[in-house]
Amino acid sequence: MLTYSFDHRGTENLYTYLYNCMKRDIVNGVLKPHEKLPSKRNFAANHGISVITVENAYGQLLAEGYIYSKPKSGFFVSPIQSQIDKEMRQTDLINTPILSEQADFMNLSSNHMPAEHFPFSVWAKLTRRILTEQDAKLLVTPPAGGVVLLREAITKHLKDFRGIHVSPEQVIVGAGTEYLYSLIVQLLGRDKIYGLENPSSKKIRRIYQAMGAKIVPLEMDHEGVMLTPENLTMPDIIQISPSHHFPTGIVTSVSRRYGLLQWANESMHRYIIEDDYDSEFRLQGKPIPSLFSMDATDKVIYFNTFTKSLAPTIRISYMVLPLPLLKRFYEQLGFYACTVSNFEQYTLAAFIKEQYFEKHINRMRNHYKGVRDQFIRLIEQSKLGEHVRISEENAGLHFLLTIKTGESDVVLKKKANAHGIQVSFLSDYYNQDYNIIKEEYQHTAIINYAGLGEADLQRVVEQLTLAWVG
Amino acid sequence: MLTYSFDHRGTENLYTYLYNCMKRDIVNGVLKPHEKLPSKRNFAANHGISVITVENAYGQLLAEGYIYSKPKSGFFVSPIQSQIDKEMRQTDLINTPILSEQADFMNLSSNHMPAEHFPFSVWAKLTRRILTEQDAKLLVTPPAGGVVLLREAITKHLKDFRGIHVSPEQVIVGAGTEYLYSLIVQLLGRDKIYGLENPSSKKIRRIYQAMGAKIVPLEMDHEGVMLTPENLTMPDIIQISPSHHFPTGIVTSVSRRYGLLQWANESMHRYIIEDDYDSEFRLQGKPIPSLFSMDATDKVIYFNTFTKSLAPTIRISYMVLPLPLLKRFYEQLGFYACTVSNFEQYTLAAFIKEQYFEKHINRMRNHYKGVRDQFIRLIEQSKLGEHVRISEENAGLHFLLTIKTGESDVVLKKKANAHGIQVSFLSDYYNQDYNIIKEEYQHTAIINYAGLGEADLQRVVEQLTLAWVG
Repeated sequence: MLTYSFDHRGTENLYTYLYNCMKRDIVNGVLKPHEKLPSKRNFAANHGISVITVENAYGQLLAEGYIYSKPKSGFFVSPIQSQIDKEMRQTDLINTPILSEQADFMNLSSNHMPAEHFPFSVWAKLTRRILTEQDAKLLVTPPAGGVVLLREAITKHLKDFRGIHVSPEQVIVGAGTEYLYSLIVQLLGRDKIYGLENPSSKKIRRIYQAMGAKIVPLEMDHEGVMLTPENLTMPDIIQISPSHHFPTGIVTSVSRRYGLLQWANESMHRYIIEDDYDSEFRLQGKPIPSLFSMDATDKVIYFNTFTKSLAPTIRISYMVLPLPLLKRFYEQLGFYACTVSNFEQYTLAAFIKEQYFEKHINRMRNHYKGVRDQFIRLIEQSKLGEHVRISEENAGLHFLLTIKTGESDVVLKKKANAHGIQVSFLSDYYNQDYNIIKEEYQHTAIINYAGLGEADLQRVVEQLTLAWVG
Repeated sequence: MLTYSFDHRGTENLYTYLYNCMKRDIVNGVLKPHEKLPSKRNFAANHGISVITVENAYGQLLAEGYIYSKPKSGFFVSPIQSQIDKEMRQTDLINTPILSEQADFMNLSSNHMPAEHFPFSVWAKLTRRILTEQDAKLLVTPPAGGVVLLREAITKHLKDFRGIHVSPEQVIVGAGTEYLYSLIVQLLGRDKIYGLENPSSKKIRRIYQAMGAKIVPLEMDHEGVMLTPENLTMPDIIQISPSHHFPTGIVTSVSRRYGLLQWANESMHRYIIEDDYDSEFRLQGKPIPSLFSMDATDKVIYFNTFTKSLAPTIRISYMVLPLPLLKRFYEQLGFYACTVSNFEQYTLAAFIKEQYFEKHINRMRNHYKGVRDQFIRLIEQSKLGEHVRISEENAGLHFLLTIKTGESDVVLKKKANAHGIQVSFLSDYYNQDYNIIKEEYQHTAIINYAGLGEADLQRVVEQLTLAWVG
């Protein structure tokens, strides 16, 4: 029978000592998987200890899964060898890198604001103030739509800057636009068909698909989504960015806007989702009015985000629901807790209310304008300038660069890569299952410049010149 | 024809003045919906101004939706009256309260940690340090699973306190457990059937339903989910809280745990979701080991949250994926951005790494133990004590109070309400479409005490005595 010496017990109590001895033998394989253990009574008698002590040790081993019991037949060693293998496997895995940014590339394919532009000191000041006040409200669960103070601040901002007159109840705050899209699909139904501009961001397509909703691509021309039977018959919901379409930069014309609103009005199930993701950064002329502000019939759901305007890693976005959907939202989805931390909601509320947000936007708009102007000037002065056409440069944080070439976008991209530049093309954003890309959308690079410092521009222009016309 | 006097134009330029006049007349109803406007040429001639000026004014009105154009027939006033009605309606709405806490109630039906226990000063210190360092990494989009530093800190915490040995890749950070559940349904499939303990939190049921997944209730006894054919045939996924079931407090026995693991192993589609939501607050004995740590076959998905252990309004939870699901997660859902702000991820990482989290948990455990002990002592010393039985008091932040009475739970709840106490009963948590609630689960109140200060306890006991045993 299994026997342990208690000579080296030291200061441990009997039960813990016994438990440790057995555990060690199980882990080391001295006690084999499925081996039967002595009965508590026999084991106690053999060691001259009480049954209670053995019971406690067995109990703890049982609770932790080292042994198992079978009714009426006693205790057995659990097969834990595979568990140990697993730990070793994982020790290997832990040493592999999780994800590394490709630091050698100048990345023109995404828009990351450089860290030096984030208003760290103001943000830190406001955060400190909010944490110092240690107000109990910081720990009170807010309504599903978010902290009221923040929603009031957003409401005022929308009124002042986007001509949108709504009440704070209509503003639903969430941890990023992607999350809010998943809520919208839950609200409107995954049995609905969602029409998406083609081209469009791949991510949006993947979100709808991951949520189980069916999507159809909508053909566009230079005025936005076309009001063709092909586009308007299938979808229940149409999602557009009328102020500034990504990636083409197209502004949806007023007649298209009214056409779409009329389409939405023809059935009670139809809605338009307006993603106004970068309307703050129109670099020329008055801001384009929001579709929501033109809609008198409660058919538009408005989306915007602080991810673009403040920092990509502050995960705060919001949507504005028309009144008829508001009741439905609270009934169907009001049980969800708001996904943004209270601390950041209160900080952002103060940031907007005390006009830091407006100042930040204005400062960034001027900065981006400066980068854009210099970038375009450098291109025009370079050899590259003779071989390209620049367009859609007045809004958002990118412009389009059409290269006069017979080479395919794949080849152009490879050549740019070989010169240390990562860049996307319009053709990357087409849902190619549906449309063949027209010649006019070929050879057109999307130049995201938000992440570039002035010092980078010269190098980018030189390398692109070498890559494409060198 | 429509005519404006330019006598009062002041310093405004012609185009802006004209735009403002027309806008005012449209809003006031002087210009009626669908009224045709003069052609730009006629209008200009009539006022002795240039066509360009009229064009600019019309253009801005058009862009903002005050007028619309019909091809080949000219410009018309938009029907904006309904828009104005809408604004007025919303002004009414804005003055109604969004959601108010029922402050007069002692609320025993939810567990809100009182603000004075949140470690504000440490949290503020760490936040300040992180913001002061102004590190560029704060603005770098982290991998889909979250900031690596935080996932490493969680990994170490799981190893030290829950016997869970995993690599940081397996830890997926998200904005609250509810959000992570929606990810899991996207990962495992909404065509799967999810078995949930009955009783269980209503919220969990609603999340699965909102995501479009089918749920079935699993019958339980005092050892946890029963291993009956009824329970095990239907579901593909079983979700349990083996360390401490809510609301019954049941700990799943080791034999049931092995039984469930075996069930999961019988088909490659089966998984077990372990929600370990309050395992930190076991007030007596050693912590119950996690099911994940007993699982040698990669069939358990582990969930935990800082919402319970730190603050309900810090929205940070995580799940641990078994290795076979990890690859699938990154392929299918890796495009989602992490939903938690970087600032809070870095703050929490430091909070855990520098052992503040461990200290906080220990302090709160002692605090809760004190509240529980005093609460139970007060009940036992009161007249109420003779009419109730207290159970499941050793774990989590609630205990069960079974009242010896013939009255229904509805009546008991009403009587408590009438004495200013909000309280839930076990019967509130049953999915009553399926099971008739057994007599042994009747008349049992769930006493959540985390939100109560010591001063409240005496009052609660007095009022409950008056309410229930008069």
